Amino acid sequence: MRDVAVIGIGQSAFGKFPWRTAADLGADAVRAAFSDCGISPKAIEVAYCARAFDASCTAQDVLKEVGIRGIEMINVENACAGGATSLRGLWKEIADGRHDVGIAVGVESMTTSPIAGKLIPPEKSDIEGHLGLTMPAMFGMVARRQMAQGARIEDFAQVSVKNHHNGCLNPQAQYKKEFSVEDVLQSRMICDPITLLMCCPNTDGAAAVILCSMDVAKRYTTQPIRIMASALCSADYKYTQEDICLSPVGQKVATMAYEMAGVEPKDIDLVEMHDAFANEEILRYEDLMLCEPGEGIRLLRSGATALGGRIPVNPSGGLLALGHPLSASGIRTVCEIVLHLRGQAGARQVPGATVGLAQMLGGLVSNLEHGTVAGVHILAR
Amino acid sequence: MRDVAVIGIGQSAFGKFPWRTAADLGADAVRAAFSDCGISPKAIEVAYCARAFDASCTAQDVLKEVGIRGIEMINVENACAGGATSLRGLWKEIADGRHDVGIAVGVESMTTSPIAGKLIPPEKSDIEGHLGLTMPAMFGMVARRQMAQGARIEDFAQVSVKNHHNGCLNPQAQYKKEFSVEDVLQSRMICDPITLLMCCPNTDGAAAVILCSMDVAKRYTTQPIRIMASALCSADYKYTQEDICLSPVGQKVATMAYEMAGVEPKDIDLVEMHDAFANEEILRYEDLMLCEPGEGIRLLRSGATALGGRIPVNPSGGLLALGHPLSASGIRTVCEIVLHLRGQAGARQVPGATVGLAQMLGGLVSNLEHGTVAGVHILAR
Repeated sequence: MRDVAVIGIGQSAFGKFPWRTAADLGADAVRAAFSDCGISPKAIEVAYCARAFDASCTAQDVLKEVGIRGIEMINVENACAGGATSLRGLWKEIADGRHDVGIAVGVESMTTSPIAGKLIPPEKSDIEGHLGLTMPAMFGMVARRQMAQGARIEDFAQVSVKNHHNGCLNPQAQYKKEFSVEDVLQSRMICDPITLLMCCPNTDGAAAVILCSMDVAKRYTTQPIRIMASALCSADYKYTQEDICLSPVGQKVATMAYEMAGVEPKDIDLVEMHDAFANEEILRYEDLMLCEPGEGIRLLRSGATALGGRIPVNPSGGLLALGHPLSASGIRTVCEIVLHLRGQAGARQVPGATVGLAQMLGGLVSNLEHGTVAGVHILAR
Repeated sequence: MRDVAVIGIGQSAFGKFPWRTAADLGADAVRAAFSDCGISPKAIEVAYCARAFDASCTAQDVLKEVGIRGIEMINVENACAGGATSLRGLWKEIADGRHDVGIAVGVESMTTSPIAGKLIPPEKSDIEGHLGLTMPAMFGMVARRQMAQGARIEDFAQVSVKNHHNGCLNPQAQYKKEFSVEDVLQSRMICDPITLLMCCPNTDGAAAVILCSMDVAKRYTTQPIRIMASALCSADYKYTQEDICLSPVGQKVATMAYEMAGVEPKDIDLVEMHDAFANEEILRYEDLMLCEPGEGIRLLRSGATALGGRIPVNPSGGLLALGHPLSASGIRTVCEIVLHLRGQAGARQVPGATVGLAQMLGGLVSNLEHGTVAGVHILAR
């Protein structure tokens, strides 16, 4: 298996753009990735593209805009982990020696989707979902359980305050506004105790990365970022679960990634992760073993996951402030990690970052299982 | 690269089942594939699943029904070539040594899709499509051009007569009814000169194949079917094209597959292909080089592509009679080839078949280019 490097990253604007197509947004991200690394679109040998809603040959639609055609293109979907799936598909092609250079794209146009609408609908087979257990309801239940275990509602608000602060430092964030704990708590109640500012917004946007084998990378850049680990797995679907706050698949994939990379959680300098709801970020600290089980709240309160802390989480602003175009997020998180490892993250730079982790958890939180699929990538300079 | 074998095949019923879910149909196909080869679902190490409409973690949804979980699952989409993309993804995993055994599924529930509806809608960016150049309109134009080049409307009807005859011999076909040329010509006009019986129907259905490395295959079966070639490529998107009847991407992928398999068109004993419209099948004879350029009509009229002819095409009944659940078709065609290579195709058996070819052409025929993506697999016993 060959070493694979990220050599180019790009992102479209993130926001609500109902007048734009997915192809259009995707092409912005792809153009940005090419101008980031300076290679020609003609160098691309294979392409992956993730899109969850209304997908129909999106890779072909996006890439023809920049003159990429006549190559193998694979469109993938894995809910919020679609971007991670796209990246991993491309990583395999290069690691296994099928190709030297390729592009992975993630794109979502939530505002134009007749399906995504304002609230992601439950699957047809998801009976609890149709009875009202939608995403915010599920995370509301989980939040209540976290509170029974010692969390305060102010802790959830603090995650949102932290990530919105980070978003203010990110020119590409959908929302660039500071909020206080009070602001978050007093925003509109969505599903008790989850308020509006504890939910990620609906977002249109796209992200792209250009990967190549490490030996080829040296031709194009003096700063190749190495993919140390790529892990993706679907859940075990336990219909009953001991702890509603656990994500067994999240933990499993994190363990796979740490083993593959040969690093420990303490070696990670920054994390980008799935904070679809503010209280979720705290649970994910534990899945990723950034702290001991049950210590997520304490980790948050210590300030360790804020910029300037021991292990900054979601320096980009996360899904909460940067926005969450479903299938783009798994690629966008990797773009953010790369910026920090290159020392190009501007006002939100994690100083001296050498190893970063990008996590995504996808699929409805149905049957009391957190996530249908999880993906983790670990990158290093 | 390792040799890869098909060891199990399965198909759900094909038809209009608006009361059934995609997960439910998919599980039928998967169960059939397991009972075909007798292996345990626990042997499956990786899964691919294609679905074009309303996809959301369909692999996970389908496979949990048969107790497959906790493995890597990749959901793919490539319009009508989605099934071929699913199969090829799995083939790579095994050929490249990542896994020994896996399953590829294709499923579509057209009747329950709020998007698929009765007529596949054009892409947002497809201006001609929105002005009326939908699939039947496009193929109507192409048919007129074929007629200017010597085809008669009776030739198109004859393709439908042939494939509906084959469908009568296939217990799994959506339509099992003989039609005469007169019947086809007198059916409702859809888009002059395309009549209703020259169009494939809307279909719900699923298909699945179980692949493994050739050395492992010998443990499970005495009749492993070898995948000699797997080829997939996206179109070059020429905005003008010399001949509206050509599919440059179809020709390119056919050439790639023949080269990879080390066979010539004359070595192929049967073909399953994309006959979404009756006149299309004739064009595809030429793409696949079953005859010289411009000789498609002559090949049809000679009876060579009928059962009992030199190179039977769509012995299953094809999309026209068997039905066309978009993402299932690319897997289902492979199931049909495997049945013939094993000598298990019953009344429609192509005697002594040793090499078969399964082709799919996907994506809207926009910008006067036939197909956004083409996939070809060549199999041998």
